[in-house]
Amino acid sequence: MRVDVFFGTGELAAADVGGRVVAVIDVLRASTTIAVALGNGAKAVIPLESSEEVVVRSKSFAKSEVRLAGERKMHTVPGFDFGNSPREFTREAVEGKTVLFSTTNGTGALTSVSGARDVVVAAYVNFSPVVALLRTALRGGADVAILCAGHDRHFSLEDAACAGRYVRLMTKSLPGVALNDGAYSATVLDAKYRENRAKVFADSAHGRALAEAGFAEDLALAAALDAYPVVPIYQDRQITRIGPDRER
Amino acid sequence: MRVDVFFGTGELAAADVGGRVVAVIDVLRASTTIAVALGNGAKAVIPLESSEEVVVRSKSFAKSEVRLAGERKMHTVPGFDFGNSPREFTREAVEGKTVLFSTTNGTGALTSVSGARDVVVAAYVNFSPVVALLRTALRGGADVAILCAGHDRHFSLEDAACAGRYVRLMTKSLPGVALNDGAYSATVLDAKYRENRAKVFADSAHGRALAEAGFAEDLALAAALDAYPVVPIYQDRQITRIGPDRER
Repeated sequence: MRVDVFFGTGELAAADVGGRVVAVIDVLRASTTIAVALGNGAKAVIPLESSEEVVVRSKSFAKSEVRLAGERKMHTVPGFDFGNSPREFTREAVEGKTVLFSTTNGTGALTSVSGARDVVVAAYVNFSPVVALLRTALRGGADVAILCAGHDRHFSLEDAACAGRYVRLMTKSLPGVALNDGAYSATVLDAKYRENRAKVFADSAHGRALAEAGFAEDLALAAALDAYPVVPIYQDRQITRIGPDRER
Repeated sequence: MRVDVFFGTGELAAADVGGRVVAVIDVLRASTTIAVALGNGAKAVIPLESSEEVVVRSKSFAKSEVRLAGERKMHTVPGFDFGNSPREFTREAVEGKTVLFSTTNGTGALTSVSGARDVVVAAYVNFSPVVALLRTALRGGADVAILCAGHDRHFSLEDAACAGRYVRLMTKSLPGVALNDGAYSATVLDAKYRENRAKVFADSAHGRALAEAGFAEDLALAAALDAYPVVPIYQDRQITRIGPDRER
């Protein structure tokens, strides 16, 4: 059994995810936003690689069935219903809807892990149910990989620190789990911050950029541990939540 | 002024190194070995991407002028003079010679940073003169990038911790230097270990693999701070040392 953490799609080879249970983390903000949308009753989130694809795909739905979401350089794509701010994905806005979603980094990470056995979307807002699922997989003998989406191909502190928290609690009191250097180093970053997630974001380049662009409240939401306790599963090119309870 | 750390060539875009002073780190073992070879009087080290290229290139030298060095999966390429163990590159073996060198990760990292203003090869064994050079560049207004070679495209703890030491001492008491998340996180890893480089290698997957393969003495050498205080500069596709003193 092993848990590997990768800090960007540039690190990935097919063997790194093939047959594994994979968690994709993009805390700021795609994985947080996906958990919030599903927690607020969205029927599904479909990650797409470009805003053009969102527009094309939307034509196969009735207008009342879908919401268009897309971010480029932190802001809403013109003409779309939402950007990538999780606060926009309210129950009123998304309940029962399919969200077509393109973001700068997060959706690319999701589409890069084809070949995985299962893919789950992980953040702080849905930490406990997702770590429970990963721990169960690990105890059942599965290998786990965590892909940090990062930012423009680059390492992101907030994704790495969040991954470290997942590694720590996933492996707690489980002997014999091998970690790659990325997983081990992520736990070192987690140990520096522990519950001080606001400090993680303050120390992260993208966290500071979001605060400066007026998204400080998004950081507060992204730091809210277990505020949206859903398990988003990526399967057949769409993300839906598992578990019977669709209401919070 | 900024200092960015990248954890593998997969993270790199051309803009990340273009016009910058770049340090390439592959502590285990290519950058250590290069410093040792030059410290022991090698005329030049020519990094090549494959052992086949080493053989082809050797034909343009008199046999007495060159040494062939190449590693695949930690061991010497059959028929070559050396593998990638720095202990093989003694003064007797390399003085006055040109070393044609292919390794699994280190040479690929060097050849990936074309476009940089200057490229220097950095390790623990040549820490002080290299950090002095980088600090001087930074004070002169240059941006610095550190590329960790990593291992098979993946993040390596030992390269990251070494990079963190470089970042810490390069920026000490220099206000206004921006760090990317990689550089900042490398300093967190450095802070965990400080002078305990043996522990860095014990915690690193590749360090453990080398120890198990019988290369524990290589780890001791790679940890010997400033034992080979040379500044290896990569220019015109070869690495030579700068500074007037060719003797140790």
